[in-house]
Amino acid sequence: MSSEPMRVASVGLGRWSKVIGAAATRSDKLELVTCFSRSQEKRDAFARQFGCDQAASYEELLADDRIEGVLLTTPNEVHVETVEQAARAGKHIWLEKPIANTMSGALQIREILEKTRVTFSIGHCARMSGASRKMKELIDTDKIGKLSMIEAHWSTGRAMQLTPDDWRWYADATPGGPLIQLLVHHFDTIQYLFGPVAEVQAFKGSLNTPAEVDDVTAVIIQFESGHLGYCGSSWVSPGVYWINVYGTEANLYQMLDLTHWGDPNIDKYTTLMYQSRGSSEKVPVEIPMRDMFREELEDFVDAIRQQRAPEIGWIEAAQALACVEAAIRSSNNKRPVTIAEVMH
Amino acid sequence: MSSEPMRVASVGLGRWSKVIGAAATRSDKLELVTCFSRSQEKRDAFARQFGCDQAASYEELLADDRIEGVLLTTPNEVHVETVEQAARAGKHIWLEKPIANTMSGALQIREILEKTRVTFSIGHCARMSGASRKMKELIDTDKIGKLSMIEAHWSTGRAMQLTPDDWRWYADATPGGPLIQLLVHHFDTIQYLFGPVAEVQAFKGSLNTPAEVDDVTAVIIQFESGHLGYCGSSWVSPGVYWINVYGTEANLYQMLDLTHWGDPNIDKYTTLMYQSRGSSEKVPVEIPMRDMFREELEDFVDAIRQQRAPEIGWIEAAQALACVEAAIRSSNNKRPVTIAEVMH
Repeated sequence: MSSEPMRVASVGLGRWSKVIGAAATRSDKLELVTCFSRSQEKRDAFARQFGCDQAASYEELLADDRIEGVLLTTPNEVHVETVEQAARAGKHIWLEKPIANTMSGALQIREILEKTRVTFSIGHCARMSGASRKMKELIDTDKIGKLSMIEAHWSTGRAMQLTPDDWRWYADATPGGPLIQLLVHHFDTIQYLFGPVAEVQAFKGSLNTPAEVDDVTAVIIQFESGHLGYCGSSWVSPGVYWINVYGTEANLYQMLDLTHWGDPNIDKYTTLMYQSRGSSEKVPVEIPMRDMFREELEDFVDAIRQQRAPEIGWIEAAQALACVEAAIRSSNNKRPVTIAEVMH
Repeated sequence: MSSEPMRVASVGLGRWSKVIGAAATRSDKLELVTCFSRSQEKRDAFARQFGCDQAASYEELLADDRIEGVLLTTPNEVHVETVEQAARAGKHIWLEKPIANTMSGALQIREILEKTRVTFSIGHCARMSGASRKMKELIDTDKIGKLSMIEAHWSTGRAMQLTPDDWRWYADATPGGPLIQLLVHHFDTIQYLFGPVAEVQAFKGSLNTPAEVDDVTAVIIQFESGHLGYCGSSWVSPGVYWINVYGTEANLYQMLDLTHWGDPNIDKYTTLMYQSRGSSEKVPVEIPMRDMFREELEDFVDAIRQQRAPEIGWIEAAQALACVEAAIRSSNNKRPVTIAEVMH
């Protein structure tokens, strides 16, 4: 097992690539050596900021023998294509969520992975926050009793700012709007906490944004365990992020301040409250300070070095995306949709 | 228009009758003159507590010419029967929610009311709290911009304490469990705030209670306006009551401490927070101190004296119950159910 840092390249140099690039530089396990974007300007800025090389094309970057893995923050629409190229070049792949825009895209990726055997991990970082890790621990150590239900909300005003030159403007490029952009995170976190989802029902609509994309959604969930869930998002409202868990002995309330989303110290801006049976008092729970962006990359490296599956691999990412696709189908076809139905 | 207090009688002398009886005594507009329950013990206690007479039978009470109206806090299952008897005796009727256990019961009540022309009001007090009144004002005066969605939650641990000698134990007597017992309140309040519901989808289940009744539910809603909503309840968890409204300019968060439910000073134990666009800060909004239990009775009296419809009459109560019935049908039949479908 190598103790050398793994040499990686960043590809797709929008806003989020800097969050991920900075996370890589905080870790001893990764070394960011080069980057690529079709925009020369973005390449120059990224290379300067992180003191790395740049490639003139994605093909050139993938031909670079120094590189073991790629950190892909490309637009959702090209995930399948950028993953396929990297996998065929034998590079391990860390990909920002969502795995793809559609299940058929996710299934194409599975085929590519089966052929190429590279390690593949997806950036569902939210389950790795200190608060989510603590919630999982409290559930697993029976501190909230028997589970009943879970609720999660993620709103931002992003859809109000969209213009036709943003890919997010278009319904095809952003299926379900906040479903694929925001709730796909919660779909991962709630399955991390409550196990696999069996079935969903949903409403969605485009009510207030000037864009053609959907801007509001409400989804209810039945888990395989029988427990119930809800995920909601308004993509035109002030920023909101919370996860509530209801049990027979206690409830848990996680609330995160989205103005700090992307900050590695996000746990400092998060509260986790515990309410016991028979009491209305909400007692703060201490949140371990983690660094979910660094940790998601380190799990990717460790998985490669230890020849094990990453915590969030194809199946976990596909299960989160399946909730998005099931919610879209439910809303469009006016019926409940099972995860089994959309998973193949 | 009489300035005399209206003479009323309390019927069905369980826990809630005392909340309502006390509210009547706080008002100059009502005079509680007699009471009835099949239990001699409860009659004695109630008459002693409120310094009123008691009747030996419901028939005797309804034959009492002093009485203009009845305050019915009878078990849900006998609402149709107790309403019918009172209406045929020419008494005006204030009835604790829900109007009935089923829409067919509510429709029977409508027929009775059409024949007897008595005034009929239902105890959906929650919309009359200071916090709900303030939310309505902020929405109506455009302080939150264009509406996007609304969420409401009401949990209590009540189902964990049920025994077979409580009517709430039985699925038939308590359709949908927390749907008919708790969420019917929120179904009224969210329609007060967002207008009529068009369609619902729901999951429900009996997971953790020893009783046969359902103990958890998650419901999503599309309003006639296109806006979306969610109502959820775990009937086995610590007490929770909140209503969130999401708009393009601001979000509103109402949270009420259920350990004080029934206290006329409930507004003192409620918070209402306002979050503006571009900010994560939640600013407290001053809540007017109201007395929703007194006010719901006074609206009933004023409606009679002024020969107008009460704020919460048959149609409002039926619209709240229709959401319960639509949610039950949706969950049982695995499809979205429109309110139009269940309203006749």
